[in-house]
Amino acid sequence: MEGKTSYSDLVIIGAGPAGLMAAAWASRQGINARIIDDNAERVQKGRADGLHVRTMEILDSFGLATSIEEKAYTLREICAWNPDAENDDRIRRTQRVLSREEELGRYHQLGIHQGFIEQKFNDLLEAEGRLSVERNIKTVSLDLDKASSTNQNAYPATLRIRRPDEACNRETPNGNGTNLSNSLESQLKGSANIWHEEIIKAKYLLGTDGAHSWTRRQVGLSMTGDRTEKHFGVIDIIPLSDFPDIRISCSIHSANHGSVMTFPREGRLVRFYVQLAETEGEEFDKTKITPDMIVQRASQILSPYKLDYDYCDWWSVYMVGQQYASTFDKHNRIFLAGDAVHTHSPSMGAGMNVSMQDTYNLGWKLGQVIKGIAQPHILGTYTAERRAVAAELMEMDQRMSKFYCEGPTSDAHDYSKFRDEFRTFLSGVGVEYGPNILVPPVRDDKEGAIAEPRNGSYETDQSKLYSEQSLATKIIVGQRLPSHQVMNHAEANIVHVHSVLKSDGRWRVLLLAGDIGQPHQMARLKTVCDYLASPSSFVHIYTPDGGKIDSVIEVLTIHAASRPEVEFSSLPEILRPFDPKLGYDYWKCFANNNHGEEGRFSDAYEEWGVDKNRGCIVVVRPDQHVSYLCELEEIEQVTQYFSQILVRQKLDN
Amino acid sequence: MEGKTSYSDLVIIGAGPAGLMAAAWASRQGINARIIDDNAERVQKGRADGLHVRTMEILDSFGLATSIEEKAYTLREICAWNPDAENDDRIRRTQRVLSREEELGRYHQLGIHQGFIEQKFNDLLEAEGRLSVERNIKTVSLDLDKASSTNQNAYPATLRIRRPDEACNRETPNGNGTNLSNSLESQLKGSANIWHEEIIKAKYLLGTDGAHSWTRRQVGLSMTGDRTEKHFGVIDIIPLSDFPDIRISCSIHSANHGSVMTFPREGRLVRFYVQLAETEGEEFDKTKITPDMIVQRASQILSPYKLDYDYCDWWSVYMVGQQYASTFDKHNRIFLAGDAVHTHSPSMGAGMNVSMQDTYNLGWKLGQVIKGIAQPHILGTYTAERRAVAAELMEMDQRMSKFYCEGPTSDAHDYSKFRDEFRTFLSGVGVEYGPNILVPPVRDDKEGAIAEPRNGSYETDQSKLYSEQSLATKIIVGQRLPSHQVMNHAEANIVHVHSVLKSDGRWRVLLLAGDIGQPHQMARLKTVCDYLASPSSFVHIYTPDGGKIDSVIEVLTIHAASRPEVEFSSLPEILRPFDPKLGYDYWKCFANNNHGEEGRFSDAYEEWGVDKNRGCIVVVRPDQHVSYLCELEEIEQVTQYFSQILVRQKLDN
Repeated sequence: MEGKTSYSDLVIIGAGPAGLMAAAWASRQGINARIIDDNAERVQKGRADGLHVRTMEILDSFGLATSIEEKAYTLREICAWNPDAENDDRIRRTQRVLSREEELGRYHQLGIHQGFIEQKFNDLLEAEGRLSVERNIKTVSLDLDKASSTNQNAYPATLRIRRPDEACNRETPNGNGTNLSNSLESQLKGSANIWHEEIIKAKYLLGTDGAHSWTRRQVGLSMTGDRTEKHFGVIDIIPLSDFPDIRISCSIHSANHGSVMTFPREGRLVRFYVQLAETEGEEFDKTKITPDMIVQRASQILSPYKLDYDYCDWWSVYMVGQQYASTFDKHNRIFLAGDAVHTHSPSMGAGMNVSMQDTYNLGWKLGQVIKGIAQPHILGTYTAERRAVAAELMEMDQRMSKFYCEGPTSDAHDYSKFRDEFRTFLSGVGVEYGPNILVPPVRDDKEGAIAEPRNGSYETDQSKLYSEQSLATKIIVGQRLPSHQVMNHAEANIVHVHSVLKSDGRWRVLLLAGDIGQPHQMARLKTVCDYLASPSSFVHIYTPDGGKIDSVIEVLTIHAASRPEVEFSSLPEILRPFDPKLGYDYWKCFANNNHGEEGRFSDAYEEWGVDKNRGCIVVVRPDQHVSYLCELEEIEQVTQYFSQILVRQKLDN
Repeated sequence: MEGKTSYSDLVIIGAGPAGLMAAAWASRQGINARIIDDNAERVQKGRADGLHVRTMEILDSFGLATSIEEKAYTLREICAWNPDAENDDRIRRTQRVLSREEELGRYHQLGIHQGFIEQKFNDLLEAEGRLSVERNIKTVSLDLDKASSTNQNAYPATLRIRRPDEACNRETPNGNGTNLSNSLESQLKGSANIWHEEIIKAKYLLGTDGAHSWTRRQVGLSMTGDRTEKHFGVIDIIPLSDFPDIRISCSIHSANHGSVMTFPREGRLVRFYVQLAETEGEEFDKTKITPDMIVQRASQILSPYKLDYDYCDWWSVYMVGQQYASTFDKHNRIFLAGDAVHTHSPSMGAGMNVSMQDTYNLGWKLGQVIKGIAQPHILGTYTAERRAVAAELMEMDQRMSKFYCEGPTSDAHDYSKFRDEFRTFLSGVGVEYGPNILVPPVRDDKEGAIAEPRNGSYETDQSKLYSEQSLATKIIVGQRLPSHQVMNHAEANIVHVHSVLKSDGRWRVLLLAGDIGQPHQMARLKTVCDYLASPSSFVHIYTPDGGKIDSVIEVLTIHAASRPEVEFSSLPEILRPFDPKLGYDYWKCFANNNHGEEGRFSDAYEEWGVDKNRGCIVVVRPDQHVSYLCELEEIEQVTQYFSQILVRQKLDN
């Protein structure tokens, strides 16, 4: 059957967690996108199973965190077991460590299988009704027309696919004298008749099709890195065991049989990563491994404790190695993410997290460029920002594999110390982007010294912007904004700041207005608002005609005055815009913890290292990363910041 | 068309919140039940909209709290406005009060419309797949055969219903020469053909069919109480207003125009309860009231602030009055709940809560009696327990109506003081049942003095049981068990006790084992476990053949030892039963906050007023209410307690 040609702004190949994250962004931003997958069903069992703090924050920004958290195993403690000094045929507990994830964010490390997360994304796509996963799609060819790549209106990628032709099957006439069922009939007709070819012309294309990525091969990117001959078995079972820490995540080293890492899961499942015996001289034959062999090996390592199982949910064998691609894009038109550009060992549960974070970084940029809100050159930050993360992951994984594969030595096996080195990065909250076009450098990077506090307006070279890190010592420019509790001014409800930074594609400008109960501080805020209300301010010139004033950049205010002393109606109206049908917007102004509320919730100014008598402006990207920090008086520089990133929709009046 | 006859263990008439709560219990307990409603759809707008702390705890026990909490308005602050002393044409804020619901439980008072809650129950029923609401059902007649009411196997209630005969409509032949649509064709045939009659013989029947209850009329119960001539308008609008507390729940009294109470809601809605002008001498004509009139009246009261609206979601007019029924059941076979047996003014949002709590009280009792687990005489506690609550509600509502309807006087208008009198009852956490067959009296009730602490075993009159309140001074016998955090011993996860007291119909025996790091306390626990393991203990004799040991009564342990000093494997096995396919049960043993964990979570023993060197046993009903408190040595008395309530399934060996 001859292929029809269709047009799409974005085609996503592969509907695993990374692809679905990109699809969620596409859905939220309302762009013309498709997501295809060659499997008939989502992953039902096994594969990835760990979620870290930052991933949960991201899932929460799409409204998906609560149902996942309710079902998952919560990791609160980690134990290390090592050979007993008096009898090295036995292991004994050498360390018990609190996970202390509450120091990093609102979530804990969780254990839940990948398929459940995919299902939540599928539910989100279905509820929003804009796109859903097209399954059973075979990719045939992919071409990129380099010449048209610089033309924003062009569709430089040509993807040829084959799909089961359901319409054709449905049209098979009844009553043709046979009693074959439709599907059997179709099979008998041969594949030529039941597959339908389609040519998709795409403005942008994303390959999230896994470690054996078809997309990567089409664009000719290669992976570089190391492979070892170390093999691990990974198995999900309901354990029958007297090991006392069977429901605790453990790092277990035996004297003579290798190591096991365990990770409990939802329901009664426990995952085991089991170091398999090396075959001297011979090549390791994966096909000879069975689940019984993996569990038996784990049982030897756990001695004197017993380990057996009746139910095995899933198992696999992997070879330790680290590989990643030299770039994550082709002409900023075809992008790759997740396992398609970085592979490593699974034993710290990083893979699914880093993969979803890849496309969480990319998805809003693609959406804004496709919609004509942002300039195409911001797409160049994707490879820069995410390849640096992949590089760090490779290094961490190498050291971790060494930790697990090498025999127990007193120094290397201080598990707590080892974990401390990586936990901030692994949790995802330590990831820092820039400096680049989206994240200007901080002043002390360039001038070697922290600038002195200034009075009045701030003079700078208009062609260069610098963030002033000292204004908010614990809001690290380039990292995600840490979430703390604040009080909705109009409702008195206590909310986390992240709960108002939903992933809907909008930029946020946070006015940390300070103690506006002080007349001079209120005067400073009013000056900011006078500027915002002027036709040349960023909220006007980057908002499309007919769009609401907060549709591209939302201004949020968090003041540090005593809330009872500041009436909602005394706040400048541009901070709480009035709509003739809906009234004022009561969900944009917040109060920091203050008089009479001490102890009820956290002091965000204190946690962020912001002076209540000074305040500052924080520009937050649509992915919650902090891009720019400046004084209240420097509000015009926020327009300058956006001038290099966004597309001007209106001329100054 | 002639009616078929069917049999059902329980028929629920009316699928509002009270009926759906009963249906949820029926679904959870797997009984043969039906729920019917004469409306074609659930409530879409208006009606009840307030949820209190205890109701949220109950909804959480069915897994429904989170999604409701995420969507609802959270009440954290309440303001009182009264005439300005200097100009009584104006109102001014006279009080700002924190709701302080966190002192009562894990939830706040919430504002969300009834239909959303009904939808969550419908979703639960659908997910569990046992029963769902049958709609468009008209009730025709109800008879109760008193003679067979004492026979447990009889179906004494006969309910005749009419339903749209979908099967009949579907069978209308095609191709009969007309091109009428099926539905039009059916209409033309007349109602005699499209309604199908059915006779349902029911063991038990529950009427949750509202203030104008058909069921109540059939059984001839009358309502007694007072009605006034005070009328209020109630309206849900998106307000256009400069009133600064428009998103705060307010009690507002004007000097000359009456009072308004406001309650913000999900989305942008705000509900107003507006006192309407009394018509001198004439009879009040409800039919003349319009939404504009209600809002205009509210606007007068709010002066000098403006109030207008573009969108009105729902409105109604009600007359203040309090009425309730003399009994809530007929021969313990037909029961009534919710508005069917108590009506009052809606302005404190109590109605839906008390109604759901009625059937939360009844549902597990019906389930256990129908399943032959409990003795039928426990059903007598329903009217006793819930009518007392209704009586208290009537009294509260009378005083509250007086507060709103009487003009502002300095004393009556200390809103904070007024609220404090009622908040524990209104929140639902102060509700206390007994003494009765399910809740034995506490010792000092009977003997006029608190018993002295005892050593060794406790001697008592075997025919009478008394709870020893002094063993847990803040676990009030008859009230719901307050929830505090404890740590899962095997997983180190911190959980609320309520999260392990799900509404699944099971009784719980909580062994507060004390500091089992002390040998003598561990010895006490082992004595308890030896008894539990014996064939005559309650976990054996009340469990049906083939049932799991925890299927009727679940034993949960919360010890107060340092968790690292007590290995999971050292806990007696009956506290963590082993299953040959599933392994040990890791979710029944918990540690109180202890060494190294201070500050991370609450100290439950301290909060409950339990001595860590002594401990106690707490028997908790399937509805989380505490029925019995005794010493660890008194474990045999727990069997005695159950002997008056449950049906013995096995003889002692």
